[in-house]
Amino acid sequence: MYRIGVDLGGTNIAVGLVNEKFEIEVKKSVPTGATRPADEIIADMAATVAAVCAEKGIDVSDIESIGIATPGTANNATGVVEYANNLPFSMTPIAAMLAEKLGYKKSVKIANDANAAAWGEAVAGAAMGTKNNVMITLGTGVGGGVILDGKLYTGFNFAAGELGHTVIEVDGAQCSCGRRGCWEAYSSATALIRMTKEKIEECNQMGRKTIMSDKPKVSGRTACDAMRAGDEAAKEVYDKYIKYLACGLVNMINIFQPEVISLGGGISGEGQSLIDALLPLVRAAQYGGASEKATQLKIAKLGNDAGIIGAAMLA
Amino acid sequence: MYRIGVDLGGTNIAVGLVNEKFEIEVKKSVPTGATRPADEIIADMAATVAAVCAEKGIDVSDIESIGIATPGTANNATGVVEYANNLPFSMTPIAAMLAEKLGYKKSVKIANDANAAAWGEAVAGAAMGTKNNVMITLGTGVGGGVILDGKLYTGFNFAAGELGHTVIEVDGAQCSCGRRGCWEAYSSATALIRMTKEKIEECNQMGRKTIMSDKPKVSGRTACDAMRAGDEAAKEVYDKYIKYLACGLVNMINIFQPEVISLGGGISGEGQSLIDALLPLVRAAQYGGASEKATQLKIAKLGNDAGIIGAAMLA
Repeated sequence: MYRIGVDLGGTNIAVGLVNEKFEIEVKKSVPTGATRPADEIIADMAATVAAVCAEKGIDVSDIESIGIATPGTANNATGVVEYANNLPFSMTPIAAMLAEKLGYKKSVKIANDANAAAWGEAVAGAAMGTKNNVMITLGTGVGGGVILDGKLYTGFNFAAGELGHTVIEVDGAQCSCGRRGCWEAYSSATALIRMTKEKIEECNQMGRKTIMSDKPKVSGRTACDAMRAGDEAAKEVYDKYIKYLACGLVNMINIFQPEVISLGGGISGEGQSLIDALLPLVRAAQYGGASEKATQLKIAKLGNDAGIIGAAMLA
Repeated sequence: MYRIGVDLGGTNIAVGLVNEKFEIEVKKSVPTGATRPADEIIADMAATVAAVCAEKGIDVSDIESIGIATPGTANNATGVVEYANNLPFSMTPIAAMLAEKLGYKKSVKIANDANAAAWGEAVAGAAMGTKNNVMITLGTGVGGGVILDGKLYTGFNFAAGELGHTVIEVDGAQCSCGRRGCWEAYSSATALIRMTKEKIEECNQMGRKTIMSDKPKVSGRTACDAMRAGDEAAKEVYDKYIKYLACGLVNMINIFQPEVISLGGGISGEGQSLIDALLPLVRAAQYGGASEKATQLKIAKLGNDAGIIGAAMLA
């Protein structure tokens, strides 16, 4: 039994054939061409689904379920993308459009991309086996997905779970959403890069030595790598980043008390050392931190495949 | 058909007989005596339930359902209070104890008091008819209760929904929970009183005139009343309070996208003028604020009876 997951991004459409062990057996990707009409995007999506099936010698009609992870506000009930920022979707019934192009008789499911990734981790990744869990993606932004009582929580208008857009510092750093002081403005990879650059600038002005000054390009790894090499200024950057990240995680624990929070996105590549740095701060501040029933922090397992696997498992 | 709701507080045990229109027909209250053994507290609770029934000439066995709103971590599934801060409960099966003392054959239900009040507003108050709603209580602290998909959300360990204990200002004002900068430390009545006192002190030192200086005692109403009388310093206090309250409310909207957020507790006595002050700030900052499907802000309807009515309706 095979399922198809489609991860529709602003740059690429990735399609995966997912088996019963939640492994992706075939994966193909085509450019999204995000400025084209929706109809053309969906046509290429359908062609890629067909190509993935063909490679395995399976008829599309034999696919158990098809799901799409999409940017924007995705109405799970109707399969309509109500609005997307970077794609030409406005009340666009992408599920029905894909099903029609494929001649697929069952209904195609859709979910917001961050939610689909969280669903993937819940079904087949770091939060497998739990009914209440939260995924936080530490990438360009801070994304969130919330699974409550075994179901993806989307709110009454399918726009819930914008966990990165909760203010943790009133009048703080400017966020992409227009507010100031959002968690995203302190805990995204973008924020870590900003903090790193600020520290390098500060060191340069003070004549303080830091190996971070020698790097030609600053990335989310610059401070982490320099810290491990014993650089003190880098340690200050990392500690500050961890402090804000822990603050936001404690907020989520006090709100949801989930069994698991899984951390994904580029920063989660730091692995267990990230968890080890966060845990003491989180346990000291959270409600019920001393209890055996305290939320577990885990590194997400599925990486970039979470969206495909989550989409495939929406049905 | 009648139901019984018990609102167990640190000071009083209030018991109400609730009819099918969610009206309390009989209400009785006895002192909690919170330092006594649990057994004695439950005995007085049972006697009060019996007295309420007797006054209406109803046999306890004919009561449709009995519920208790209790402080602390209330396991809804087992009827056990796992822990309470200001009552002698530690893994105490208060539901079974009350049922046994009353000879009541059905199971007694329990919920945390803030959650029971939220449930009351959801079933019979400001959020009636909606499946996803949040109640925020602006009293001594900032309490929260979350109803998702028509059910009270308590997390996997029955401790979820501590919405007041989410940091909105890193390293900010000291909170009772041990953290700094919690929403509670800016949006409770206690916080408003602190802000009012700070402003009076500031005015006194600057030789600035404010009618708030003439009040013998500062309460949560002092700034609101003085503002309405045209006092500028009071307006500054109120605006600051509204700014922080709006910030926390936007956080909750971006997380939950509930149909309704109802505001209860002492500060909600300000009524529609509170909503009118909050709405422009909330709509400008929230995700989806321009949409027709934006969360409604409402003043809670049931007042101090929310706990009794919510407890009665738990079954």
